[in-house]
Amino acid sequence: MSLIQEKTLQAVEILKEQQTDLWLTFVRETSGVRDPALDFIIGPGDLTWPSALMFTRSGEKIAIVGRYEAEAVERLDVYDRVTPYDEGISAVLRETLQRLDPGQVAVNTSRNNVHADGLTHAMFEMLSEYLTGTPYADRLVSAEPVINALRGRKTPAEQTRIRKAVEITEAIYRKTFAFIRAGMTEIEIAGFMHAEMEKAGVGFAWPKEGNPAVNSGPDSPVGHSGPTGIRVEPGHILHFDFGVKYEDYCSDIQRVGYVLRPGETEAPPEVRRGFEVIRSAIEQGRAAMKPGVKGNDIDVIARGVVTGAGYPEYKYALGHQLGRVAHDGGALLSPLWEKYGDSPNQLLETGQVFTIEPGLAVPGYGYIGIEEDVVLTGSGAEYLGGPQTEIVLLKG
Amino acid sequence: MSLIQEKTLQAVEILKEQQTDLWLTFVRETSGVRDPALDFIIGPGDLTWPSALMFTRSGEKIAIVGRYEAEAVERLDVYDRVTPYDEGISAVLRETLQRLDPGQVAVNTSRNNVHADGLTHAMFEMLSEYLTGTPYADRLVSAEPVINALRGRKTPAEQTRIRKAVEITEAIYRKTFAFIRAGMTEIEIAGFMHAEMEKAGVGFAWPKEGNPAVNSGPDSPVGHSGPTGIRVEPGHILHFDFGVKYEDYCSDIQRVGYVLRPGETEAPPEVRRGFEVIRSAIEQGRAAMKPGVKGNDIDVIARGVVTGAGYPEYKYALGHQLGRVAHDGGALLSPLWEKYGDSPNQLLETGQVFTIEPGLAVPGYGYIGIEEDVVLTGSGAEYLGGPQTEIVLLKG
Repeated sequence: MSLIQEKTLQAVEILKEQQTDLWLTFVRETSGVRDPALDFIIGPGDLTWPSALMFTRSGEKIAIVGRYEAEAVERLDVYDRVTPYDEGISAVLRETLQRLDPGQVAVNTSRNNVHADGLTHAMFEMLSEYLTGTPYADRLVSAEPVINALRGRKTPAEQTRIRKAVEITEAIYRKTFAFIRAGMTEIEIAGFMHAEMEKAGVGFAWPKEGNPAVNSGPDSPVGHSGPTGIRVEPGHILHFDFGVKYEDYCSDIQRVGYVLRPGETEAPPEVRRGFEVIRSAIEQGRAAMKPGVKGNDIDVIARGVVTGAGYPEYKYALGHQLGRVAHDGGALLSPLWEKYGDSPNQLLETGQVFTIEPGLAVPGYGYIGIEEDVVLTGSGAEYLGGPQTEIVLLKG
Repeated sequence: MSLIQEKTLQAVEILKEQQTDLWLTFVRETSGVRDPALDFIIGPGDLTWPSALMFTRSGEKIAIVGRYEAEAVERLDVYDRVTPYDEGISAVLRETLQRLDPGQVAVNTSRNNVHADGLTHAMFEMLSEYLTGTPYADRLVSAEPVINALRGRKTPAEQTRIRKAVEITEAIYRKTFAFIRAGMTEIEIAGFMHAEMEKAGVGFAWPKEGNPAVNSGPDSPVGHSGPTGIRVEPGHILHFDFGVKYEDYCSDIQRVGYVLRPGETEAPPEVRRGFEVIRSAIEQGRAAMKPGVKGNDIDVIARGVVTGAGYPEYKYALGHQLGRVAHDGGALLSPLWEKYGDSPNQLLETGQVFTIEPGLAVPGYGYIGIEEDVVLTGSGAEYLGGPQTEIVLLKG
C-alpha cells in the first residue's frame, strides 16, 4: 500500500470519529501555492486547474480535476471516482455536493496550524461564490481537527522513516564531533556536515542556509541564521541545530560540546550547571507527556525548570511536532502567546512525534540548547534516539 | 547585486508607477505554505513566526520578523529596517502602519493569479482582526497588479537564465532524438532524458513524474500524466513536453517526431498537414504579440487557425507566462473560460516570457503539439530558441 493510500484510509476513519461528513481540499496551480494536505492525498505531483479532492465519512473518495490531469490522478489508485472537466469546475462541484448532501464541508483554513491552512483567501471567496444559493455555503467549517489528526497520528510507516532520519542525524553528529578542531570556522564545520548528508543521501529538514545552525562561543548569533566565519576556540560552548529529511520525513536535533582550555579536563562549573538544567528540563517535560495532556502544561513544566534555576526565559516554544517538515503543526508545547494561537491548548495524542528543546546562554561561553525527538505511545513519550546526557568535550 | 536586491528595487518602481502606497506580504511557517512572492523578497529561506515584509512607494523596505530570524533577514541586505518581536506581531505591525499611514495596503490575494495569492484565508482574517479599529482595515487592496508586474517583467538577469534553460532543453532534445529506436518504451526514453538532465546539472520545471511527457502513437494519454510502457513503433507520431530549471528559471518546450514505416521517406500527408497547421498557428499568434495587446486576442488568432483548418478545438490555453515556475501566472493567452478568471483580459508587457503551444490529434497516428518560448520586446515577440519548423523523422 502506498503512503497516500494508507493516509487517505486513515482520513476516512478520522472523519467517522469526528463525525464530519465531508473534507474538501480546493486547490489550483499547486506549483505556485501548494496546500500542505496534498502530500497526503495526491503525493508529490501538482494540479494545474481548480481541483476538488473530497473524502466522505461514508468512505467515498472523489476527485474533480482538469481533463488533462485525470489520468495522473486515476493512476494513484486512491480515488473511487475521478471527474474531469474542461472550462470550469463550479457546475460539477455543485452537482457533486448536491448528490453527497453533507452536513459539514470541512475546508483547509486554520488560524492555529499552517498545515491545515492551505486554502487561500481568494480560493475561499471563489468557493463561497460557487456555493451561493446552495445549502453548502453555510456549512463550511475548518478542517483543522481532521488535518491535525491526519498529520499528527504517524502511522508505523511514517514512524519508521522518522526513526531512520534520527539515526542518520546521530551518525553525522558523531562524525562531526570527531572532525572538529580549534581554529575551524562555523562555516567549515557546516560544510563537513553537508558533505556527510550527501554521502548519506538525505535532504534538508529546513533550508540549507540555516541547517545546521552552528554557534561557537558567546558572540555567535543564535537562531535561524546560518553559520558564520567565527572560529572554534578553547573555552567555547559549541552548539548545533541540525535536521535531515529521509524519504520525506524529518529529524530535528540540537547538540552541545565544549572546547577544553589548557589544563581543563572538564567543562567549567557554570557550563556544567547550564547543561544539567537543560537536561533536567527535557527529562521532566518528557516524563509528563502522555495522551490527553495539554501541550502548554508540558511547556510550563520545562520552562519552570530553567527559570526556577535563575536563567532568563527562552522566547520560543519548548517543542513542536515533527513529520514531513520540521515544524509539523498541530498541538504545540508552548506558552500562550499570540503567535502560537490555540495550538498550546490542544491535547497530545498517541502517534504524535515532538521535539523538546529548551535553551539558555552561559555568559562568556556560549549557548546551551539540547533538542530531543520523542514519540507519544499509549503510556508516554519515548526518545526516538539516544538523548544527550553528557556535554561532548573537545580538545582545544 | 543579488536577484532579490534587484527585484525589490523593481518592486518600489512598480509601486510608484501604480500609485500604490504600500505592499505587504504577511506570512508564517513558510515551510508549510509558502507565499510565491517570497522568492523575490527574501529568497529561498523560510520564516517561522508571523512576519510582515513591507515595501513603500517612497522606497522604504521594512521587515517585522520573529527575534530568532532577524539576523538572517538583516544579512539579505535588502531591508532598511528589520524589527524583531517575541510574543506577537500585532502591536508592532499596527505601530508601523500608523507611522507609514498608507492610503492603500496591497496584500497578496488574487482570483486570477495564484502567484499573487499567497495570503491564506485564515491569515487574511487575522490581519483584518489585527487592523480592526485602525483606518487600514478598510484600505486592503489586492497586490495582484504589483506582483503581476514584478513577476512578469523579467530583468536581464532573469532573461539570461531562461535563455540558458531553453538552450539546455534544446540540446537534450537533440540527443534524445538521436537515441530513440523503434521498440523503446516511453518510460525508457524519459529515463534517458532524466540522465541527460543530471549530466547538465539542471532541475525539473515541473515534477519529474510528468516531465517529460512522452506520447508515442494514438493510444498514449496526452496531458500531465507521465510516460507509459507503450513502445515506439513505425507509424507513430512521437510527442514530448519537457522543461528544465536552470538557476531557478524554467523552460517549457514541446517537440514532435514521426517514426517512418517501411518504404516511407516522409511523414504521411495527414501528419504533415497537422504539423503545418500547428506551426502556422504558433507563427500567426507570435506575429500578433506586442505590448498592449490582450492575451485573449492572441489565443483567438491561433485557435482560429486550428479550428479553421477543421480540427477540434484544444481545451486548454494557447500559452502561459514562464519564469521561476513553468506556469508563471499573470496575463494569459487563453479563452474566456471560468477557470482562467480575468487573466486572458490582461495586457502583454515588455519583458514577459510566454509559451505558445497549440495542439491537435491526427487519428491513427498520435498527437501533434509544438511549444515555443518567446520574450516580449518593445516591437514584438522573439523566439528564445530555434523554433521547430520541420517534423523530426525517425527511422522505424
